Amino acid sequence: MKISVIGGGSAYTPGLAEGLIAIHEEVPFKELCLMDIDEPKLETVGKIVKRVIAAQLPDVKVTTTTQRLDAIRGSAYVLCQIRVGGLPGRVLDEQIPLKHQVIGQETVGAGGIAMALRTIPVMLDIAADVSQHAPDAWIINYSNPSGMVAAALARHSDVKAVSICDVPIGIQEFVARAIGVNRKKVKLDYVGLNHLGWFRKIYVDGRNIMSMIRSMAATSNIAPLLPTDDEKTADEIEMAVRIFKQIGIIPSPYLQYYYLNRECLEKQLAADKTRGQVVQDIERELLEHFDQVAGDDAAELWKSRGGQWHSELMVSIISAIHNDKGEEFAVNVINNGCVPGMPDDACVEVPCIVDNRGARPLRVDRPEPDMLGLMQLVSACENLTVEAAVEGSYDKALRALNLNPLVPSLEVARQILDEYCTAHGNYMKLT
Amino acid sequence: MKISVIGGGSAYTPGLAEGLIAIHEEVPFKELCLMDIDEPKLETVGKIVKRVIAAQLPDVKVTTTTQRLDAIRGSAYVLCQIRVGGLPGRVLDEQIPLKHQVIGQETVGAGGIAMALRTIPVMLDIAADVSQHAPDAWIINYSNPSGMVAAALARHSDVKAVSICDVPIGIQEFVARAIGVNRKKVKLDYVGLNHLGWFRKIYVDGRNIMSMIRSMAATSNIAPLLPTDDEKTADEIEMAVRIFKQIGIIPSPYLQYYYLNRECLEKQLAADKTRGQVVQDIERELLEHFDQVAGDDAAELWKSRGGQWHSELMVSIISAIHNDKGEEFAVNVINNGCVPGMPDDACVEVPCIVDNRGARPLRVDRPEPDMLGLMQLVSACENLTVEAAVEGSYDKALRALNLNPLVPSLEVARQILDEYCTAHGNYMKLT
Amino acid sequence: MKISVIGGGSAYTPGLAEGLIAIHEEVPFKELCLMDIDEPKLETVGKIVKRVIAAQLPDVKVTTTTQRLDAIRGSAYVLCQIRVGGLPGRVLDEQIPLKHQVIGQETVGAGGIAMALRTIPVMLDIAADVSQHAPDAWIINYSNPSGMVAAALARHSDVKAVSICDVPIGIQEFVARAIGVNRKKVKLDYVGLNHLGWFRKIYVDGRNIMSMIRSMAATSNIAPLLPTDDEKTADEIEMAVRIFKQIGIIPSPYLQYYYLNRECLEKQLAADKTRGQVVQDIERELLEHFDQVAGDDAAELWKSRGGQWHSELMVSIISAIHNDKGEEFAVNVINNGCVPGMPDDACVEVPCIVDNRGARPLRVDRPEPDMLGLMQLVSACENLTVEAAVEGSYDKALRALNLNPLVPSLEVARQILDEYCTAHGNYMKLT
Amino acid sequence: MKISVIGGGSAYTPGLAEGLIAIHEEVPFKELCLMDIDEPKLETVGKIVKRVIAAQLPDVKVTTTTQRLDAIRGSAYVLCQIRVGGLPGRVLDEQIPLKHQVIGQETVGAGGIAMALRTIPVMLDIAADVSQHAPDAWIINYSNPSGMVAAALARHSDVKAVSICDVPIGIQEFVARAIGVNRKKVKLDYVGLNHLGWFRKIYVDGRNIMSMIRSMAATSNIAPLLPTDDEKTADEIEMAVRIFKQIGIIPSPYLQYYYLNRECLEKQLAADKTRGQVVQDIERELLEHFDQVAGDDAAELWKSRGGQWHSELMVSIISAIHNDKGEEFAVNVINNGCVPGMPDDACVEVPCIVDNRGARPLRVDRPEPDMLGLMQLVSACENLTVEAAVEGSYDKALRALNLNPLVPSLEVARQILDEYCTAHGNYMKLT
Repeated sequence: MKISVIGGGSAYTPGLAEGLIAIHEEVPFKELCLMDIDEPKLETVGKIVKRVIAAQLPDVKVTTTTQRLDAIRGSAYVLCQIRVGGLPGRVLDEQIPLKHQVIGQETVGAGGIAMALRTIPVMLDIAADVSQHAPDAWIINYSNPSGMVAAALARHSDVKAVSICDVPIGIQEFVARAIGVNRKKVKLDYVGLNHLGWFRKIYVDGRNIMSMIRSMAATSNIAPLLPTDDEKTADEIEMAVRIFKQIGIIPSPYLQYYYLNRECLEKQLAADKTRGQVVQDIERELLEHFDQVAGDDAAELWKSRGGQWHSELMVSIISAIHNDKGEEFAVNVINNGCVPGMPDDACVEVPCIVDNRGARPLRVDRPEPDMLGLMQLVSACENLTVEAAVEGSYDKALRALNLNPLVPSLEVARQILDEYCTAHGNYMKLT
Repeated sequence: MKISVIGGGSAYTPGLAEGLIAIHEEVPFKELCLMDIDEPKLETVGKIVKRVIAAQLPDVKVTTTTQRLDAIRGSAYVLCQIRVGGLPGRVLDEQIPLKHQVIGQETVGAGGIAMALRTIPVMLDIAADVSQHAPDAWIINYSNPSGMVAAALARHSDVKAVSICDVPIGIQEFVARAIGVNRKKVKLDYVGLNHLGWFRKIYVDGRNIMSMIRSMAATSNIAPLLPTDDEKTADEIEMAVRIFKQIGIIPSPYLQYYYLNRECLEKQLAADKTRGQVVQDIERELLEHFDQVAGDDAAELWKSRGGQWHSELMVSIISAIHNDKGEEFAVNVINNGCVPGMPDDACVEVPCIVDNRGARPLRVDRPEPDMLGLMQLVSACENLTVEAAVEGSYDKALRALNLNPLVPSLEVARQILDEYCTAHGNYMKLT
Repeated sequence: MKISVIGGGSAYTPGLAEGLIAIHEEVPFKELCLMDIDEPKLETVGKIVKRVIAAQLPDVKVTTTTQRLDAIRGSAYVLCQIRVGGLPGRVLDEQIPLKHQVIGQETVGAGGIAMALRTIPVMLDIAADVSQHAPDAWIINYSNPSGMVAAALARHSDVKAVSICDVPIGIQEFVARAIGVNRKKVKLDYVGLNHLGWFRKIYVDGRNIMSMIRSMAATSNIAPLLPTDDEKTADEIEMAVRIFKQIGIIPSPYLQYYYLNRECLEKQLAADKTRGQVVQDIERELLEHFDQVAGDDAAELWKSRGGQWHSELMVSIISAIHNDKGEEFAVNVINNGCVPGMPDDACVEVPCIVDNRGARPLRVDRPEPDMLGLMQLVSACENLTVEAAVEGSYDKALRALNLNPLVPSLEVARQILDEYCTAHGNYMKLT
Repeated sequence: MKISVIGGGSAYTPGLAEGLIAIHEEVPFKELCLMDIDEPKLETVGKIVKRVIAAQLPDVKVTTTTQRLDAIRGSAYVLCQIRVGGLPGRVLDEQIPLKHQVIGQETVGAGGIAMALRTIPVMLDIAADVSQHAPDAWIINYSNPSGMVAAALARHSDVKAVSICDVPIGIQEFVARAIGVNRKKVKLDYVGLNHLGWFRKIYVDGRNIMSMIRSMAATSNIAPLLPTDDEKTADEIEMAVRIFKQIGIIPSPYLQYYYLNRECLEKQLAADKTRGQVVQDIERELLEHFDQVAGDDAAELWKSRGGQWHSELMVSIISAIHNDKGEEFAVNVINNGCVPGMPDDACVEVPCIVDNRGARPLRVDRPEPDMLGLMQLVSACENLTVEAAVEGSYDKALRALNLNPLVPSLEVARQILDEYCTAHGNYMKLT
């Protein structure tokens, strides 16, 4: 059995490889194929992954390729973690809105729309290849913006796909840590769109412990319970706690851009670098480290860049499918009734049962009116973006940008879109 | 931990006790309390159950009572298998329509409406008692008509309840037997209302094997693969196969009354006894047997009346809740989106995940138009019946009867309803 | 301006011509073109219509043709009143179900499905011709089954069409007569499908007079207030009053087949002739009379066959469009929200505002659950029938027949369908 | 027949009186009763109205009162044009958000929410009085925010009410003027919420002339065709044309706050006075003028303050009801299906047929996704506001404010809400 990773040159891949090793008994793959169009990164990461796998699973073959079809052919699982235009593209996504005093963020607002416009056509190409050359394979997609990618795959391809995000599993972990139990004991009543969700109830041993968490947040401070040396995570926790104290339910960290738009914008405008630029620095450092340890078997491998949940989620999903487990994960699916009050054609992120039939959504409770209102608007914005990406439509992209609540005017939307088209060139062709 | 059984004098109860014994490690109950208003039956059945439990679980206490509150107080699980008016009431439900050349069936058509009109008020009384005296207890309801009871409980009480039917687990077992695999390997794409459902796809090892089953039905005959010495089951299989050959998906056996209404009616009119009368005979014989073996420890206990799946389903549900398993069962729930195309207020029978939060429905695929059309009509009929039962409304009961597709005219509906009211007396008071 | 009549050889046409004369000032047509494939009837009716028009509108040209395109070209309004297979086809539609003890009726139940299967392909051909050769023309359709034809035209053509039925205007007239006011003063709260509707409230001068009508029905008898020498009308009134007394709202006369199915069936089985055979006799007599008076200018013209409301409705619709009146009529439209509780894709018959934009539906109040349940089932049946007609699908036709509440079994449905296919030959080709 | 005006001391009232005079033949009222709690304004306006009516309808009695019940008793029509807290309250609604760099507008955004919180409780009191003391009377509501008032009346009272806004009739007039036809010849395909609507198509003589209007906007400039000496109107036209050129359909002028939020905000921050302050000046001047001319019969009356369409719309609605006309107007109604894609419980502003049954909505075409998305969010915001007003709920008011797309953050929302509560005192009590 072969597993391939599209975008395999990512600095996340060594961490993913460790996850795959951990579940090898459950998912006995024989080959791990890394595919990337960035040859230097692929070479660096490939070396590390080969070293890591060889140490623990000597019978498993690790291959690398720049040819997508070589990776896809024969695969049972095709893991997608692509970033079209790379980190330089991400930095443009962030910087251009900021020039107009508009939130510049990778997956949310104007930046998320731009990322979707670049990513969706490529993901549909990958899906077409899978459909033709490995029709029984599962695509496990982690490429952002994961919700819009899921919508595009569901509407414009016939592949078997599961499109995920590690925010829910991350919150589960945070809560588990804060109250001192194992993550698997923490059960979530989660609902939303990708990067726009709420944790309404938290169950431990069949009891909703949300009022306990609220007391913790009121009397002391939750943040100290969640020590982190990652500045971004610390900041996210602080913003999430600010929102939580006001609304009493746990927000996805990305909701800060909606609930505290002005405050986020001020912070971004005051920062020296965008998050993308920070990540560029981290990645450069990490790749250098990989180059070093790859050549020195004795050297210890750094904990790979973030993504411990990313890796855990990816491999858990594969195992749930492979072993027909019927386990519950938050997955992005076309609504069609599972979130009461949302239009049928919305792509929602909800608890799903994952087994060898794929991800079947559970019907969740109707969200509160303000949650629904925001979801409805952003869902309309996402659906317009998906159509814009598929059709290459400038008009629909503009309407999506204008509708987005983080974009303050139609005329500003037009300026941002025009600058995106110029800056991204061939990655973003709209007419 | 205490488990109580309302309607514990049923001949099904010994079988249920055997099931409870089998899962005692998972669900370590300390007391089993049987409650019934029929003292003679309660005494007979109670003796047998005591003998059966004592043999295997000497530390478990078995109690009997005619006082509902005594049973409910202290219970963690309240199992309901009541039959208001007893088997004589069932026989009336069947005979009165037949006098008018209308299907006379326990849970379907006119008979099902009559049964609901008697059962729902009592079930709501039980729920009120549970709500007041054992608010943390789960009601596991098996009383028919299970779907309408579920709707009544969901709308008119605040208890935690799971309302089930053993048809889906029975079909799973039949398919497993026909193709020679373990029941748990057979996975169902099931959708419908209670006693009005379809098995659209059957998965084994992740493959839909429906076309294989269709071939089996076309070339040979499935029936011989399903040997049974139960005449009713044999007849159900024959009718189900006749329908299956025409529509290509597996019907609930009760769908014969809709798909082959005329043929079923002719059979019923030609029969010497209604099914209720046959069951009265079986029960009499069985209770006599119980009386005998209860007094003679050496005597072997007959396989208790039918219900092997009933027992297995009941105890599996209890274990799934108790152990927070997240297992999949077909349960009756208010639709609210989980069956696309059905009104939100329909009570549907669909795959649900059962854990200590109760039964959360999975969203299923949209049924075909003819399935939807029949479900919509019968659901409207059921909702009217529930309202009629709750309000004691003659007018709504009449409208429900008239709407039912098995009742051929408003004037016939009125005659049947009037005769029901007279015959059932205090069990069915409408104004 | 040219008006053409497809099916112009109908015995209804002279009455229609009288209606057109009456509104000539509002709708100043210059040519009336009658098209029919039945040459003898066309010749007979054409002569009468020419005589009638010449007497009052000497400047208007009356033409006849057997070539559909000749009629359509240049038309502003194309009136459709076709009957595919003629009255002999209707008699088959009625007789074949009756052989199986199933209601045999022109537009309802099995017969209505058969009629739709023959009519829809021809109506779509007509629509294609109009679309190509007279794209600005309005189709005013009166061909039955009017609701299914409306659904087919809405989904499978791009013509401007208004599909109507004279039942609502007829009830309006009956009520007006019964209480002694002008028809236009009677306003209806009507909802339903074509030939399956209810008059829930009747307003006169802004007051709902339904309780007054109920009192009239209770104390005396409405029927005598509605004298008629037409046996069919008398019978319809009697059945409608029987139903009205039970449900308290006025049913469409065709609802008798649903509310009093058994009673209607007994009547049909006892009758010497089907309604179609009676109509054949009437038509024969009428055409002979037409032949006589056409040759004798002094002879008085009989009141043409029924259809005074048909004529009045047809010409009122034309005038409402032509003069942009914004008048209210019951028209068949795709639901899409206007009847709360009905699926979006149902074709419903509801009050619409008719002006030169066509027929825009008013949103009506949610029907009672039993009304909704019946409408939902029959709508599913109709949608399957339309698909069967468009695709020539035997399977879908069978599923439609089986779903219909007037057909008692899948196996009977198959027998009836097979006999229809054989009897109708080229008019009904299904595979 | 008596017509009463709640808020009759408004400077709009003389214009309304002129409108009532113009339709006196159609709506032969005998008494016009002006009620207001502001005695000085009531006296001034009352004198003018008495003079105006006496001159033309000497038999009509004009009365004034500060007692609401005196006005309501005996009325056939109760016209409501209240402003709770008066113009000083409006100025607060505008100024407080502006202090936080947030749009300060009477009916939109934070200001609209504040206005609704004050207005709804009073309107429900009025409705309760009408329900008790004049149950057959119609409330014609023009009090803003008209959509939220309509929602509150529909959900929390049983009065017959029609809640309107003069934006649609104003656009109709503008278009009529721009293309040189009579207003009644211009027909609108309008959809939206109150103060958030779009004119998608404009029909003249059955043709959609939107592409012609687009050409006019593209080649020359529409604005010069719409000369106005009113600075606010000129500004609205300019902003609407800017939006129209980008989206190709005509926006409600209030959509500028959504489509050009940033630009509007900059303009408001740069202005010396808010619109409310400007209106205070206008009103002061107008009331002085009224005082003068009231005492001098020879003096000519100024055209009363704006509102020529307001007056025309009010009296047209009254006449449509009174004479059972079935005329088409845009009215605010609970959606329940008439705008496909919108939730059933949204209050939408759509074309309705107005007759003596009240306002029945036409079902309109599904809005484009971006229109729907914005409507869905703002509708959720409005529904929360209505609930907040009815329950006096601080939490719901805060959630409404936070959800509003013109409010940039939850923390800013809280500050604005707190300042509103302090400033409005008894007019806005939330807990």
